[in-house]
Amino acid sequence: MENFRYFSPTEFVFGKNAEHEVGKLLLKHKATRVLVHFGGGSVVKSGLLDRVENALNKAGLPYVLFGGAVPNPRSGLVYQGIDLARAEHLDFVLAVGGGSAIDSAKAIALGAAYDGDFWDLYDGKAKIVAALPVGVVLTIPAAGSEASASTVITHERGMLKRGVLSDFNRPRFAIVNPELTYTLPPYQTSAGVTDMMSHIFERYLTPSKGVELTDQLCEATLRSIIAAARVVIREPKNYEARATICWAGTIAHNGSLGVGRIEDWSTHGLEHELSALYDVTHGAGLAVMFPAFMKYTVDVDVERYRRLAVTVWGIPDDPADPKRVALAGIAAFEAFLTEIGMPTTFGGIGAKQEDIETLLDKLEINRGKTLGSFMKLTRSDCRNIYLLACK
Amino acid sequence: MENFRYFSPTEFVFGKNAEHEVGKLLLKHKATRVLVHFGGGSVVKSGLLDRVENALNKAGLPYVLFGGAVPNPRSGLVYQGIDLARAEHLDFVLAVGGGSAIDSAKAIALGAAYDGDFWDLYDGKAKIVAALPVGVVLTIPAAGSEASASTVITHERGMLKRGVLSDFNRPRFAIVNPELTYTLPPYQTSAGVTDMMSHIFERYLTPSKGVELTDQLCEATLRSIIAAARVVIREPKNYEARATICWAGTIAHNGSLGVGRIEDWSTHGLEHELSALYDVTHGAGLAVMFPAFMKYTVDVDVERYRRLAVTVWGIPDDPADPKRVALAGIAAFEAFLTEIGMPTTFGGIGAKQEDIETLLDKLEINRGKTLGSFMKLTRSDCRNIYLLACK
Repeated sequence: MENFRYFSPTEFVFGKNAEHEVGKLLLKHKATRVLVHFGGGSVVKSGLLDRVENALNKAGLPYVLFGGAVPNPRSGLVYQGIDLARAEHLDFVLAVGGGSAIDSAKAIALGAAYDGDFWDLYDGKAKIVAALPVGVVLTIPAAGSEASASTVITHERGMLKRGVLSDFNRPRFAIVNPELTYTLPPYQTSAGVTDMMSHIFERYLTPSKGVELTDQLCEATLRSIIAAARVVIREPKNYEARATICWAGTIAHNGSLGVGRIEDWSTHGLEHELSALYDVTHGAGLAVMFPAFMKYTVDVDVERYRRLAVTVWGIPDDPADPKRVALAGIAAFEAFLTEIGMPTTFGGIGAKQEDIETLLDKLEINRGKTLGSFMKLTRSDCRNIYLLACK
Repeated sequence: MENFRYFSPTEFVFGKNAEHEVGKLLLKHKATRVLVHFGGGSVVKSGLLDRVENALNKAGLPYVLFGGAVPNPRSGLVYQGIDLARAEHLDFVLAVGGGSAIDSAKAIALGAAYDGDFWDLYDGKAKIVAALPVGVVLTIPAAGSEASASTVITHERGMLKRGVLSDFNRPRFAIVNPELTYTLPPYQTSAGVTDMMSHIFERYLTPSKGVELTDQLCEATLRSIIAAARVVIREPKNYEARATICWAGTIAHNGSLGVGRIEDWSTHGLEHELSALYDVTHGAGLAVMFPAFMKYTVDVDVERYRRLAVTVWGIPDDPADPKRVALAGIAAFEAFLTEIGMPTTFGGIGAKQEDIETLLDKLEINRGKTLGSFMKLTRSDCRNIYLLACK
């Protein structure tokens, strides 16, 4: 087990009608003027935004609505949000939505507390030392951003997708009502499931030894997600399955499954450039990239893939041929992705083989740099994985 | 799944040499004058207290040493600590030790911020609305107090053992170096293992439905603890096994395994009076009480006990006779306790059958009151469970 630091201070209020608590939570966390950031569409149509506004009014909290959050959130909107927060002297950013709204909210919160171009914080030119506090009303379980230290933004200049990690990014509170996810389109539900499973794989596929406890916690969470995903596909309004997916999405990315482990994150790196270039749903991009990554790296640790196959995918063990078991597990994962309606090839997301060199250039995986830790991927490895994902 | 609130903000620094970070963490958490509370004995002899003092001196932090923490911490010491904190204008309480030192530190922190007898907060006469911040350098993984909201104190007047729950009790940070646990006597290691397993059982044995995810997380953690306990009995200096036990002890009681579940806690209630009366180690008392509780309640939910037997104790399933499987699991738990050197009967801890009515009186389980949720125990049920524990 590696030495580690674990810090996940977000206060969760989870369950039916939880959104009615938002005013109380904002007051508790010392908000006085709130930027409410959301996408639009379903948040408005479902009446959720009305309920949030009611709660804010009841709490006597002035607020400014700022819609327009989009998947793969971009810098333009962030700059607008920062200007608004400054002009209106707002001191708290409330995201109402999924990972995209939360990630732009975090970026706005960082930028409003930084005396310069917020992008400095994303491209490494400046260090994060402050941020406005952020709260969340979650509508899409997927990104885990409601408790995570991360925010990912795509800069419109060059379509560069970059993430930063900081405890300042961890939301003060998150409100999760699984009922709000009943109306998620199946594709988005499945992309979310793929995203949270990927967050676990990025931690499960590790070079660290002596991590039995977190191995078992990862496997337990994966099994629960898979079972719940199969239920919600048939019954979108199954509360228990929706609740399982919501909470699994949080713990998949709040750090608890990664303690004591060197994490990998190369597949996320490979996918980020894909979704930045083609603007595909992050989870769908991961559905394309993860099976390819797994096939490419199976020999790095056959035993680990074999264990995953047996404990998570229920593949019968075969000590005589562990690699066959390992590959059967990867095949089961791919079949599951197809079962829940996810693409598993470049073609399925409109990506093109001839763009691979462009993707590699954006990855900045040149001049001896590598990506990941489970296997340190060179530019050539990344090319091979993209090629595997084309098939 | 039940609606829930989850909040576990303690910052963990975990691993080899972690104690050297204590000065930095105190400064980060805004300490200016520190009460250092510890037991004595091993904390002094091992040189840990010296290392902590060095770190405080390096950080330029004035501090006052206050030793004397004892198992089943008592009110007398708490009163002394409160007086000291007030007289010296201390603004942070650092516990160096195990659950007992942490629980008295929490009590001192509560009392120093309360304008009256701290016991008011434990016996329900007053509400907790403030506390000095608490930090921890953990030496005994067991109680989970390093991240929990709870503190349990025995008042010397009547030897009443009472606990209170409050977010104010959650430590700001906890430093955990598994190497510090190498020298724990086997009995104390095993009592700790029993305590953390019990914290999971109190959550696992639930009337709540739709809790598959946390069921699986509980089972995963239990399996890891059992395997690691068997290793440390043979190899007290096995880092990975010690680290597993340390972290399992934290997650067993930081709330993460209980989300969405109605918890039980009747066995802890039954045990608290036992250890208050005889001053036995809490974990040993639980080793006596939990098998008895399980035998008494097996018919409340045979399926749950059967599942526990199969997934945690590796009992072969038998759909034709689930109760036999359930009971075999309980027997395996009892055998495990014996294997790790724990007592499993009243006789093993010097408790006496003739004291049962006294224990029941202290439980205050009279006049229609019940204890627990998995099965609502009446006074008569509690008597029967104590009687089962005598055998």
